[in-house]
Amino acid sequence: MKISPITATVRYMRQSKLFGKTRKEKPSDEIAKNAILLEQGGFIYKTMAGVYDYLPLGFRVLERINAIIREEMNAIGGQELFLSALQPRERWEKTGRWEKLKDIMYQFKDNSGHDVGLATTHEEALARIATHSIQSYKDLPLFVYQIQTKFRDEPRAKSGLMRGREFLMKDLYSFHTSKESLNEFYEIAGKAYERIFERCNLTSYKTEAGGGTFTNDITHEYQVLSEAGEDTIFYCEQCGCAQNKEIANIKEGDACSSCKAKIKVGKSIEVGNIFRLGTVFSETFNLLYSDEKGQKHPVWMGSYGIGPGRLLATIVEVFSDEKGIRWPSSVAPFQTHLISIPGNDLMVEKKAEEFYATLNDKNISVLFDDRKEKSPGEKFADADLIGIPLRIVISSKTLKENAIEIKKRDEEKTKNIPYDDIKTIISYVQ
Amino acid sequence: MKISPITATVRYMRQSKLFGKTRKEKPSDEIAKNAILLEQGGFIYKTMAGVYDYLPLGFRVLERINAIIREEMNAIGGQELFLSALQPRERWEKTGRWEKLKDIMYQFKDNSGHDVGLATTHEEALARIATHSIQSYKDLPLFVYQIQTKFRDEPRAKSGLMRGREFLMKDLYSFHTSKESLNEFYEIAGKAYERIFERCNLTSYKTEAGGGTFTNDITHEYQVLSEAGEDTIFYCEQCGCAQNKEIANIKEGDACSSCKAKIKVGKSIEVGNIFRLGTVFSETFNLLYSDEKGQKHPVWMGSYGIGPGRLLATIVEVFSDEKGIRWPSSVAPFQTHLISIPGNDLMVEKKAEEFYATLNDKNISVLFDDRKEKSPGEKFADADLIGIPLRIVISSKTLKENAIEIKKRDEEKTKNIPYDDIKTIISYVQ
Repeated sequence: MKISPITATVRYMRQSKLFGKTRKEKPSDEIAKNAILLEQGGFIYKTMAGVYDYLPLGFRVLERINAIIREEMNAIGGQELFLSALQPRERWEKTGRWEKLKDIMYQFKDNSGHDVGLATTHEEALARIATHSIQSYKDLPLFVYQIQTKFRDEPRAKSGLMRGREFLMKDLYSFHTSKESLNEFYEIAGKAYERIFERCNLTSYKTEAGGGTFTNDITHEYQVLSEAGEDTIFYCEQCGCAQNKEIANIKEGDACSSCKAKIKVGKSIEVGNIFRLGTVFSETFNLLYSDEKGQKHPVWMGSYGIGPGRLLATIVEVFSDEKGIRWPSSVAPFQTHLISIPGNDLMVEKKAEEFYATLNDKNISVLFDDRKEKSPGEKFADADLIGIPLRIVISSKTLKENAIEIKKRDEEKTKNIPYDDIKTIISYVQ
Repeated sequence: MKISPITATVRYMRQSKLFGKTRKEKPSDEIAKNAILLEQGGFIYKTMAGVYDYLPLGFRVLERINAIIREEMNAIGGQELFLSALQPRERWEKTGRWEKLKDIMYQFKDNSGHDVGLATTHEEALARIATHSIQSYKDLPLFVYQIQTKFRDEPRAKSGLMRGREFLMKDLYSFHTSKESLNEFYEIAGKAYERIFERCNLTSYKTEAGGGTFTNDITHEYQVLSEAGEDTIFYCEQCGCAQNKEIANIKEGDACSSCKAKIKVGKSIEVGNIFRLGTVFSETFNLLYSDEKGQKHPVWMGSYGIGPGRLLATIVEVFSDEKGIRWPSSVAPFQTHLISIPGNDLMVEKKAEEFYATLNDKNISVLFDDRKEKSPGEKFADADLIGIPLRIVISSKTLKENAIEIKKRDEEKTKNIPYDDIKTIISYVQ
């Protein structure tokens, strides 16, 4: 018996059969670049303001981002679980957040007359559940996480996948015997976050922030520079330090206190946040542990959030040009985009099919543009819009030289290589 | 670059650090066996009636079931996507189901005063979305599916994971040019369903049923015999045919019309259902395709559902005894349960740690009961409750013979094998 991977990912797809078509015209009701490009590229569908569906291409990217997140969470000892969205009012009244969050939490009565809400976050749930798992100092520290759908009734929902009313969240919760243990893990979790953003090809800046309804302690945000951002930061490109404009004690042009380089200012997207919750939630839910002498103390908690959908949107905002998206290879829906330009040449069709089979054999994932009714120009425009890192073209012209044409999405120049030179393809996608 | 598997599944876990503890006492507010055993075993946590959280052990089983489902859906050409739970009222009013489903659909107003609901199913959504993907007969047939959380405000929510108010659903939708194409795929999807149940070690019976709010056509259900079932079927063990009691034209003791064996009667759990929707949804949403002559016709649709959580519950109902669960190896949370009985013998601890490392090396997944404060009796009781297929015990007694003790969960007899005989372990877990 083998443990199956969570998804037997399909490595190949014919574009003629792909659910979700590209469209030339920009959606008229979107202003955010991420939403415009993702809808035009057939990655997502807008069901309502702030509510998006992931079509197969978008789902593939989302799942690759989730896989990176899972690997990094598992690497720091995170245990994955999956909690309910439906929440009883009583649980949230204990912390006062039923009232505090009422403007953004969907709250309603069920058929039996009970007040229920849709979780915007899961501190209450985890503090409650953990009382069944944590009794002794021997049970600590403990780290659990989930990738689960959250709901927030956002008044502003004009930023595409960046600020949704329904969105996936990776939320990690940590439990500790002491503030020191919490602080130690807080740094470890922060480093894991940095690795996640790095693996998505994003440069992130860590800034201090307030704790909102979560904590009175200082918290941290991870920010990625982008014109689409809703925050403004002062940052130092040289040493990577940054401060949120709201609470900064520096300004543009100042010398960085660490490296003396000039401080810059820019809009930024918050891609992650981490909170030291302290003992507020555990005191509320009577989440206690016994120390070695049998004395009881409240458990120290932390929580740590990343929105995979927001991360996907950020990648689109950062990696795109006037033609479309340029996916980093670590999260691209496919490694290669094989385009056949058959014209009237039946041999092209045959050789393109053969090449498609070869890529499959070599475990190189491929979207195969086998559409017969599309012109070369339409196919190239679609390829730029969809943004797969390596384009491979087979046409009468290339076959005359027994060649294929390859082009990276982020370069202009094309290059012919021998038809059977699969090694070069492999070197490009690695 | 490698395409990462969807989850980098963690293959090993120390029970001392597992989030979710076993408990001896039965939960007082549960009557369903699946809920009782899953809560006692630390697989799930009950947040409200009909609303359960998956703890790490339960999540592992769920993801293994999902992996089987995904493999079978991908094998028949299904493209995975992920749709929103939040739904606008207007979409559901088109089909009349906003009103028809109002007793079980959570419906409420958002902050901006719009009526929204939580999806109980996604026919409306897919018919709407597909209008952007399907124009020509060349686009058909098409198959899409998702594994996504559904919400239903069930009045009866006393069956544990079998009938939840919030639950995962695998829903597949098919699109066709003709009734014949739909019928052909309907059989193919049915066979995939049979393979899914078979891979979960379940014997399923296919019965005819009515179409509810979905269709007026005959539909089919997949039923698994269990005292916990809410349905009653007449079935023939010999040839595998069955009829739902409600609409049966046979009775207990009759001779089967195919094989002449005696018809039996029994309670059964509906683990899947398949619907030929016809063209009702496509007509409502103007989902049309052009034929070869350019003439437009409504698209034929089918929908096909399996609840992974209900399937998990069914497995527990069918594979359990008075001591606990007996997971089939295809969905077990771990392949082996390694139990160390150290007593005062430090060598046992050392050898158990070494064996744990060896299992990891060999890619055999393992839950390691390294708890020091538990007695052998408590550890064995927990192992029976949790139900991992192969138990491996290391104690002073076994080490005296340079041996380990192995026992299958579904057998009584134990057996000693040499400590370094990893080949025998591998043969047991394959």
